[in-house]
Amino acid sequence: MSENKTNISELGEFGLIDHLTSKFELKNRNSLLGVGDDAAVIDLSEEEAMLVSTDLLVEGIHFNLMYMPLKHLGYKAVAVNVSDICAMNGTAEQITVSLAVSSRFPLEALEELYEGIHLACAFYNVDLIGGDTTSSVSGLAINITVMGRAKKSEITYRSGAKEFDLLVVTGDLGAAYMGLQVLEREKEVFKANPSIQPDLDGHDYIIERQLKPEARKDIIGFLKELDVVPTSMIDISDGLASEILHICKSSKVGCHVYDEKIPIDAKTSMTAIDFNLDPGTCALNGGEDYELLFTIKQDDFDKIKGNPHMTVIGHITNEQDGVYFIDKNGSAITLRAQGWNHFD
Amino acid sequence: MSENKTNISELGEFGLIDHLTSKFELKNRNSLLGVGDDAAVIDLSEEEAMLVSTDLLVEGIHFNLMYMPLKHLGYKAVAVNVSDICAMNGTAEQITVSLAVSSRFPLEALEELYEGIHLACAFYNVDLIGGDTTSSVSGLAINITVMGRAKKSEITYRSGAKEFDLLVVTGDLGAAYMGLQVLEREKEVFKANPSIQPDLDGHDYIIERQLKPEARKDIIGFLKELDVVPTSMIDISDGLASEILHICKSSKVGCHVYDEKIPIDAKTSMTAIDFNLDPGTCALNGGEDYELLFTIKQDDFDKIKGNPHMTVIGHITNEQDGVYFIDKNGSAITLRAQGWNHFD
Repeated sequence: MSENKTNISELGEFGLIDHLTSKFELKNRNSLLGVGDDAAVIDLSEEEAMLVSTDLLVEGIHFNLMYMPLKHLGYKAVAVNVSDICAMNGTAEQITVSLAVSSRFPLEALEELYEGIHLACAFYNVDLIGGDTTSSVSGLAINITVMGRAKKSEITYRSGAKEFDLLVVTGDLGAAYMGLQVLEREKEVFKANPSIQPDLDGHDYIIERQLKPEARKDIIGFLKELDVVPTSMIDISDGLASEILHICKSSKVGCHVYDEKIPIDAKTSMTAIDFNLDPGTCALNGGEDYELLFTIKQDDFDKIKGNPHMTVIGHITNEQDGVYFIDKNGSAITLRAQGWNHFD
Repeated sequence: MSENKTNISELGEFGLIDHLTSKFELKNRNSLLGVGDDAAVIDLSEEEAMLVSTDLLVEGIHFNLMYMPLKHLGYKAVAVNVSDICAMNGTAEQITVSLAVSSRFPLEALEELYEGIHLACAFYNVDLIGGDTTSSVSGLAINITVMGRAKKSEITYRSGAKEFDLLVVTGDLGAAYMGLQVLEREKEVFKANPSIQPDLDGHDYIIERQLKPEARKDIIGFLKELDVVPTSMIDISDGLASEILHICKSSKVGCHVYDEKIPIDAKTSMTAIDFNLDPGTCALNGGEDYELLFTIKQDDFDKIKGNPHMTVIGHITNEQDGVYFIDKNGSAITLRAQGWNHFD
């Protein structure tokens, strides 16, 4: 090892991955796409390709077992992987599950975790085909790799957005982040006085969005029914702003996003205001919504118009025009990501 | 969670996996084989299938960074996964790498790790196609998922051994285990007196077998050249005894294994004797050799006879005959696995 010591937080998560994998080249003719999108692409046949993605969730970093029931954790670990396959416009089919657990977890705890995995596998029609189970020195970590399929002609990359395309988001944003704020607040109250019951009244929706997010597999079905193939797509794990910037960077385009168009549920807004937070900022930077963000040709607008699951929030511009957030007063602000950096 | 608390060590690693995954069924027609062999099998075409396996290595459980250089760890993490594809008689093509690291690791340490991954990818002609990099509360964990291909007609399962087949092992056994013993001894010496330099003289071979094991991809090539398709195959990760029992259980057969036939390198034997260990026991139960254990039809014996990489160590019997280890005096002892149980 060299004598130089560079703190990994200096690069951030994406910079770190880019740095570590820059030397790697694809040599097998079946490896169609490697690192850099929601999933890798492997050649299957003239018509079809396999999509592969992997996600590692670590206790104390990605989840806190004080308020995350193990059954929910198992469900969420599958859902976030399925979401990556959805983001490529594909259908998830198989997963492998690797688990490291310390001996403080009894068998019954792992049964709860697998119960959640089982529920998610049933809901998303995914098969558990393999895994590895080992002990850990402390805590729990779960890695899931998901494999899916898509017609090659329908795969949506981050890189396909073109000038004048419309920017569309599914569902509503910011709820998972506000759910986390409520859970964190009640955790602090509980730590200060364990006899006080958590006050989660009226927060069912946002808490469920945090503890049991769903992959938008339904959207992939709707898009097929509507005969719309997005020009680009990504799932919203790190926050809307971060994902818009990913699409713009990969597609070499600019974008105008309109604050007033961003869909936010009333319960999310009310909770944000209670917490003295700006709902729009929560929606832009909150993360973990697992909604889909995609671009479509203007010609396809009529097909999605009025669809309750999809909202047009902006349009793609020339790369030189930059990426702008247009606030409610019509002022344009350069969009910046303030998403999650686990290395901070 | 129920009030019952069962310690997971009561089930052992294999019992735990069986218990947790017993409820899961394969529902997608493309999922040809799930949990229970060295790799899962996914349908690709009439002729070909994909093989998928995953392995999780955790600091303090599977490796000790006091004597495992990070470059070697990266190389080994890839090699053990490629070995699982070899054990199915397939060719590894892609990997994904998930990494959890605490902030005590500087960037330069991760560069070393990826340097080892890169070397292994080049050597085994495998493409890094994806991954996830996150922080951990403490220590390092690395999960690799490997994907490979094989002709369906050539895939070797654990379950195909038939009565009268010959039991064959590649290379020599016990070296990786004795390498570990030397490294552990020198670690203790160093802890007692950090000014003493480790004494690894003459132990190069066994230490390399521990720190830089190779997947026997060459054997898969030899088998094709020799036109031999094994009737069953497994790689030796947990120890010869454990793997023989896996094949016998999956194939519903018995076996006679001959002590005097088991290939042990002279350096392994000498070191074992230095440590007051029986070399045969080290070869049977040591683990981490990553050699291949397979069965062939008697008709194929002439094809492998005299091959320096392959040794016939026994033959398959009827299930009712049981699994026996025949010692140098000709006494038959029921074979038991004393392999690795990470939950002890």
